[in-house]
Amino acid sequence: MKIALFGRLFNESFTDSFKLMFDEFAKHNVEVDIYEPFYDFLIREINFKPPVNGYYKGCDDLNKDVDFVFSIGGDGTFLEAVTIVRDAGIPIVGINSGRLGFMADIAQDEIPQALSDIFEGNYTIEERNLLQLETSKNGLFPEFNYALNEFTVHKTDTASMITIHTYLNNEYLNSYWADGLIIATPTGSTAYSLSVGGPILVPNTQNFIISPISPHNLTVRPIVVPNYHEITLKVEGRSDSYLASLDSRSCTFDSSIELKIKKSDFKIRVLKLKTHSFYGTLRNKLMWGVDKRN
Amino acid sequence: MKIALFGRLFNESFTDSFKLMFDEFAKHNVEVDIYEPFYDFLIREINFKPPVNGYYKGCDDLNKDVDFVFSIGGDGTFLEAVTIVRDAGIPIVGINSGRLGFMADIAQDEIPQALSDIFEGNYTIEERNLLQLETSKNGLFPEFNYALNEFTVHKTDTASMITIHTYLNNEYLNSYWADGLIIATPTGSTAYSLSVGGPILVPNTQNFIISPISPHNLTVRPIVVPNYHEITLKVEGRSDSYLASLDSRSCTFDSSIELKIKKSDFKIRVLKLKTHSFYGTLRNKLMWGVDKRN
Amino acid sequence: MKIALFGRLFNESFTDSFKLMFDEFAKHNVEVDIYEPFYDFLIREINFKPPVNGYYKGCDDLNKDVDFVFSIGGDGTFLEAVTIVRDAGIPIVGINSGRLGFMADIAQDEIPQALSDIFEGNYTIEERNLLQLETSKNGLFPEFNYALNEFTVHKTDTASMITIHTYLNNEYLNSYWADGLIIATPTGSTAYSLSVGGPILVPNTQNFIISPISPHNLTVRPIVVPNYHEITLKVEGRSDSYLASLDSRSCTFDSSIELKIKKSDFKIRVLKLKTHSFYGTLRNKLMWGVDKRN
Amino acid sequence: MKIALFGRLFNESFTDSFKLMFDEFAKHNVEVDIYEPFYDFLIREINFKPPVNGYYKGCDDLNKDVDFVFSIGGDGTFLEAVTIVRDAGIPIVGINSGRLGFMADIAQDEIPQALSDIFEGNYTIEERNLLQLETSKNGLFPEFNYALNEFTVHKTDTASMITIHTYLNNEYLNSYWADGLIIATPTGSTAYSLSVGGPILVPNTQNFIISPISPHNLTVRPIVVPNYHEITLKVEGRSDSYLASLDSRSCTFDSSIELKIKKSDFKIRVLKLKTHSFYGTLRNKLMWGVDKRN
Repeated sequence: MKIALFGRLFNESFTDSFKLMFDEFAKHNVEVDIYEPFYDFLIREINFKPPVNGYYKGCDDLNKDVDFVFSIGGDGTFLEAVTIVRDAGIPIVGINSGRLGFMADIAQDEIPQALSDIFEGNYTIEERNLLQLETSKNGLFPEFNYALNEFTVHKTDTASMITIHTYLNNEYLNSYWADGLIIATPTGSTAYSLSVGGPILVPNTQNFIISPISPHNLTVRPIVVPNYHEITLKVEGRSDSYLASLDSRSCTFDSSIELKIKKSDFKIRVLKLKTHSFYGTLRNKLMWGVDKRN
Repeated sequence: MKIALFGRLFNESFTDSFKLMFDEFAKHNVEVDIYEPFYDFLIREINFKPPVNGYYKGCDDLNKDVDFVFSIGGDGTFLEAVTIVRDAGIPIVGINSGRLGFMADIAQDEIPQALSDIFEGNYTIEERNLLQLETSKNGLFPEFNYALNEFTVHKTDTASMITIHTYLNNEYLNSYWADGLIIATPTGSTAYSLSVGGPILVPNTQNFIISPISPHNLTVRPIVVPNYHEITLKVEGRSDSYLASLDSRSCTFDSSIELKIKKSDFKIRVLKLKTHSFYGTLRNKLMWGVDKRN
Repeated sequence: MKIALFGRLFNESFTDSFKLMFDEFAKHNVEVDIYEPFYDFLIREINFKPPVNGYYKGCDDLNKDVDFVFSIGGDGTFLEAVTIVRDAGIPIVGINSGRLGFMADIAQDEIPQALSDIFEGNYTIEERNLLQLETSKNGLFPEFNYALNEFTVHKTDTASMITIHTYLNNEYLNSYWADGLIIATPTGSTAYSLSVGGPILVPNTQNFIISPISPHNLTVRPIVVPNYHEITLKVEGRSDSYLASLDSRSCTFDSSIELKIKKSDFKIRVLKLKTHSFYGTLRNKLMWGVDKRN
Repeated sequence: MKIALFGRLFNESFTDSFKLMFDEFAKHNVEVDIYEPFYDFLIREINFKPPVNGYYKGCDDLNKDVDFVFSIGGDGTFLEAVTIVRDAGIPIVGINSGRLGFMADIAQDEIPQALSDIFEGNYTIEERNLLQLETSKNGLFPEFNYALNEFTVHKTDTASMITIHTYLNNEYLNSYWADGLIIATPTGSTAYSLSVGGPILVPNTQNFIISPISPHNLTVRPIVVPNYHEITLKVEGRSDSYLASLDSRSCTFDSSIELKIKKSDFKIRVLKLKTHSFYGTLRNKLMWGVDKRN
């Protein structure tokens, strides 16, 4: 088995689990490629020089023949791993080095069992849609114009509210007067969109959610649309500079640029343990089981 | 052309438009069957005895060969028309005798143009999913166990909160501790579910929304699921009597009864004028265009 | 020291703590009056016959000379204790026999220290406003027309939405079209009102909150008013029977009855340990410190 | 009578009303001081050179002996007028040149009657609290550290969420993990705070509202506190640059600066017509009377 390891950094409390992972890799003759900045971190901060086969610096030199990409970190790290895997179809394994994540849902104490399951082929592969951003000219995000969670437009720092004219398949939907607007995938429904009052979408729904941020009009509500619709946004405001974000990457643009959001033509593949379920993660992360108010 | 007319009552201000409709029917040799209680209302309250071909009292004696069922009233009347048309596949025409509705979206002043469009075949037919309720024993709602908008469970009058154990395709989702729970279709997303904070779903989304009513746990949120999922509910509470509703019809049940909600095996067909659009109705009804706060 | 004990029932897991409390009472020569149904419960279910000085059945025969009323249970039990103490000015001590409450905030494992503090006079007394309901004729709730948490009007079981015309100091505020309306005190702001989207009010704010339940109009919002305002409600609806509730007690009324809510002319006194704070309870009960979403 | 006129600009549709106002001023021998940039606007854009007695450029050279400051514009202009009037105690008259405002609530077609009422002394003066910001060092907003509506902290453009440690009278309340936090006055409760889910506070409530912006923790809620409490904020985040705003003025600060918000030691005085009421404005602006959803 060949794998690529991706990560940024982790807390000392994860070190033992991390080393144990390498013990297991050795026992099962797993060939490991590692993300170079992560390798540097391990040597410098953890004082651990793991046995690896190769290095990669990004999407271009990632060996596309690996069986899995292991993302070590949290959901934020997982989102970065997505920008490296892209449309290669390599399943991503989300190992959580800290607090439980929706994507990085293999906890520290589950690692031994998880590895055993992976070596035995005892898992499922879940496919997740991304959204793709197309812009009318000098494309924003030339490196990678996709997001697993959400696309966001937002007013800049000191500016006043912006108007976001929104079209679905070129039919006019609404002009949001707000601080910003979030277009989220079902995967993103438990992230930023949830913080502004958006609904939760279970992973296999074929939808986008359009959620305004601090909308001025009190009757606008999050709206769920089919993901085979193209969403077009034209932004207007006093200051002609706006913020666009794909997951955690962002840039500015002006009103001459029209933004189009649609379903990506590829999917991200995520390894899921058979003992895990989305509903269980949901209940756990949102503490539905715990009710202390009475 | 043959049509069936359905209605309950209307305000005097609608009388002229209603008579004008019959003038047009006469000109175009439309044969009209009428809902008997509505006919009685017209004679008694409006002093108008329209020329009709036949009468019907309900679903059983409705002539299934009519080309359209005209629902005269509001969205509430439209929901009743659905309980009469059922799976007959007859397109329903929603004529609004009062305030604009989402389903009853042909306004009084649009009637002449609408009739002209209908006579010329200048319209589209939109199909809407219903939800179906199945119960474990002595079926609730034996007459018609379907809803166009929503299914609701609710605590009874003086009772305290209830616990609603919820399963998706037999997998445990959550136990809601709340006053009640709404399972809505996309059509129902702009009705009761919207009042408790649910999102708007555009008509062609293939989903149900599960929205709690006054939930005690502050982290539960409306959740959107695919409509090919079956939703199972088991209700628990101090008083063992709960309220179940399908659209505007309701009955009581106890905790021995398990409730299953799924997509109906037929659809309701709705006539839509080509000049109308869901987004336009949405903006109009929710007053998105009007913003008086600044 | 003389105290009156109030309670309904508790789980077995609380028995030892309860007995220990009586040991402490004995050591400090505390004279205990007990609520008769609670005494019956103790003998019948717990097989414990505590040494007591007297019995009482309700407000009328409660000895008003006791130094404290100990409420054993949760916040619901505390609300019942309020209906017995009324305007007697006796401080209530909220001992929690189960999950932590906002009012019943002395946890099982804190009892020894709490009793020691109480015997030493090491506590503060917090005063809480109640609201008072006045009705235009044949007064509702003749027994005790006050609430510590909230007054609620609600549609009855199978009825459709109701219209609640609302006036502040006889000036027209709004006509809510909704399932119901909650008028809450600051104390009630963390109870039912919070479940329908109302804000939290810290205990010493001099306000009422008016929160609609499932309002049809999407622009209505919870509104906070000074508690020296009188709030008048007139209810209208198709079925002429509505539900009124003061805390957990409820009754029906019709549209001929006008409801007036104002600040009570007395306060409830609550014993608070110096180690406790409202903000701490808030963080603990609402789990603000725990964040599992990332 | 002496008045000072304040404004920025207005639409052509307001020109006639504006000139008419000067006719009335002339008839009643009103001496008018005018804000110089506004005077320039009138000459340049409206081609109208109003007869005035004097000019002023800001707070320093405003004649404090005027009877009223007339603010011509919307609520935004009114907020600017506040920064000029400050603690001078001069009543502000809010003339609305466009859409109705909460503060600028005298509509174009009411101007003749309003002026007549003002000349006859037929009005009331309403006092509104401001909030004051104090900072631990090199004070932010050295010019004028007060706000009529709200104080806001917010993450900067491309930064991730921030943590806002919040204390009430030096007692720890909560650490908000969010995009930002709003501290609003009752006046500000219908502005930005309302857009993020805060409650409405009627003007004479003695409170502040603390409302988080896009909070990550789903159980945090807007909280209403007495305005005699001091609110202290300490902000933390990955990027050490944060945004602070007082009404529409903003600046950046870093985590070494502690922010303290308290009730101002002076009030703004607002002229209110006797025919106007806060509740009427509220119903009108939030369209409570209009309900198109059924």
